[in-house]
Amino acid sequence: MTSDDVLRTHLQELRRGTVVVASLTALKSPGYGYGLLQTLARHGFNVDANTLYPLLRRLEDQGLLTSEWNTEESRPRKIYRTSPAGEKVLALLLDDLDAVGASLASLTEGDPA
Amino acid sequence: MTSDDVLRTHLQELRRGTVVVASLTALKSPGYGYGLLQTLARHGFNVDANTLYPLLRRLEDQGLLTSEWNTEESRPRKIYRTSPAGEKVLALLLDDLDAVGASLASLTEGDPA
Repeated sequence: MTSDDVLRTHLQELRRGTVVVASLTALKSPGYGYGLLQTLARHGFNVDANTLYPLLRRLEDQGLLTSEWNTEESRPRKIYRTSPAGEKVLALLLDDLDAVGASLASLTEGDPA
Repeated sequence: MTSDDVLRTHLQELRRGTVVVASLTALKSPGYGYGLLQTLARHGFNVDANTLYPLLRRLEDQGLLTSEWNTEESRPRKIYRTSPAGEKVLALLLDDLDAVGASLASLTEGDPA
């Protein structure tokens, strides 16, 4: 493992959970998978479609997203939206991120292991 | 999967990468694994020893931690310390966490998917 690989692995690990938070946040406004991909990229979350689309299905299976089909266009497309359960989980995840930030800040202020 | 399981899974995923950040931060001051476990718990990172100890060995293998044995006591104990390479990776991970925070904030301000 090169040092680039090491960094990439840790960055991916750090990012993995935050894509869930970002998706649940963005999908408070209903959107297509592809639109979400673009929104996330615009906000600095560069997620691969092969990662995001299975994640959306997983979040739907877990009841955190709801979906409906838009059949008004020639090709039906699935519109996702954060469910009430998803909003609850999102709020708890955001609280946890804040807590992590505060914990890291207090660690950084120096407290020997 | 119950809704508690769903939440727990997402929290774990969100936390996983941050334990690396917390460990590299805390071990700028050299410490034992057990001492680190206590420091992390005091700062709100409740990590299991069965998770933390293998993580420390992995970070050492990756060159992000160095270690030496303290043989002054009856039972030799390994003292870990964040290496210069570890400090570089830590700085990049902290930058990334800041970027994630900024990205989430800009998403929350509302930008439809």
